[in-house]
Amino acid sequence: MPRDDTRSRDPITEARRQWVTHGWAEAADGMELVTSLVRAHQLLMERIDAVLRPLDLSFARYEVLRLLSFTHDGAMSMTRLGSLLQVHPTSATSAVARLVKQGHAIRERGAQDGRVVLASITHAGREVVEQATERLNAEVFASPGISPEETVQLTTLLGALRAAAGDDVPH
Amino acid sequence: MPRDDTRSRDPITEARRQWVTHGWAEAADGMELVTSLVRAHQLLMERIDAVLRPLDLSFARYEVLRLLSFTHDGAMSMTRLGSLLQVHPTSATSAVARLVKQGHAIRERGAQDGRVVLASITHAGREVVEQATERLNAEVFASPGISPEETVQLTTLLGALRAAAGDDVPH
Repeated sequence: MPRDDTRSRDPITEARRQWVTHGWAEAADGMELVTSLVRAHQLLMERIDAVLRPLDLSFARYEVLRLLSFTHDGAMSMTRLGSLLQVHPTSATSAVARLVKQGHAIRERGAQDGRVVLASITHAGREVVEQATERLNAEVFASPGISPEETVQLTTLLGALRAAAGDDVPH
Repeated sequence: MPRDDTRSRDPITEARRQWVTHGWAEAADGMELVTSLVRAHQLLMERIDAVLRPLDLSFARYEVLRLLSFTHDGAMSMTRLGSLLQVHPTSATSAVARLVKQGHAIRERGAQDGRVVLASITHAGREVVEQATERLNAEVFASPGISPEETVQLTTLLGALRAAAGDDVPH
């Protein structure tokens, strides 16, 4: 079958064409950007989930363990954890609750200030986060699919988008 | 308080520093890219959800209505819908089921081929998708937060990432 030249096989390119046809040209590039970002996010998450699923970890729980493992004593207040994860406090709470159930973390009151709730990583948590990091580095992060130059360029542009939305991104 | 120059206030920049410190330099740029993309996705989704919530729509359901409204007769097979949305068939099914409940779509057997299940947009569905598109265009797509040049550059780089993962993206 000959290829129809006006319609693209890429749903996002086709959506862009529809946007222009409908008289929304001034919003077409932004729509294409947002839709491309949603799709790229989905594709990356599929790769990450394939690595983490055998370890029974989600990316959110992996990030919690990674942050805890980077601290001096393996513990961090729930408030700081939520802030570093840049998520709603309830998301941090539910991720930690699941990690506690799995034996990868514990929740406890602060020794100096009993009002502070701390999350701490366990020995089992340290083992699983090292395994997960090794595999993510080898199977996803070291080869995202584009060249090293494109990787840095893309990160810079995403940083500009984040900065425009209020993130404190260094130049 | 003086700013600590080795640690960044940006959690992603700080994670990158940790990656290099731990000897994972070859994966640091890819980790930073993936984490930046996850964060940018989250920020954009917050803006989109703020626009769609008053209309009781999710972005997934919005996309279903948008695709149906672009067809000649407002109907499409569930199979083709899932393929254009680039999601798992069960995701398309649950989005349509919710739209049916809301009165924005109907599900029916094909007139010519009873084995085909079609999704059709209703009059109410057409009204809500036009409202949603108008608001998304004005409040998100027409001003994603970066310059028009950066918007196109970013879309191109996301396209390269998508193509590397198997999407049929035109050059």
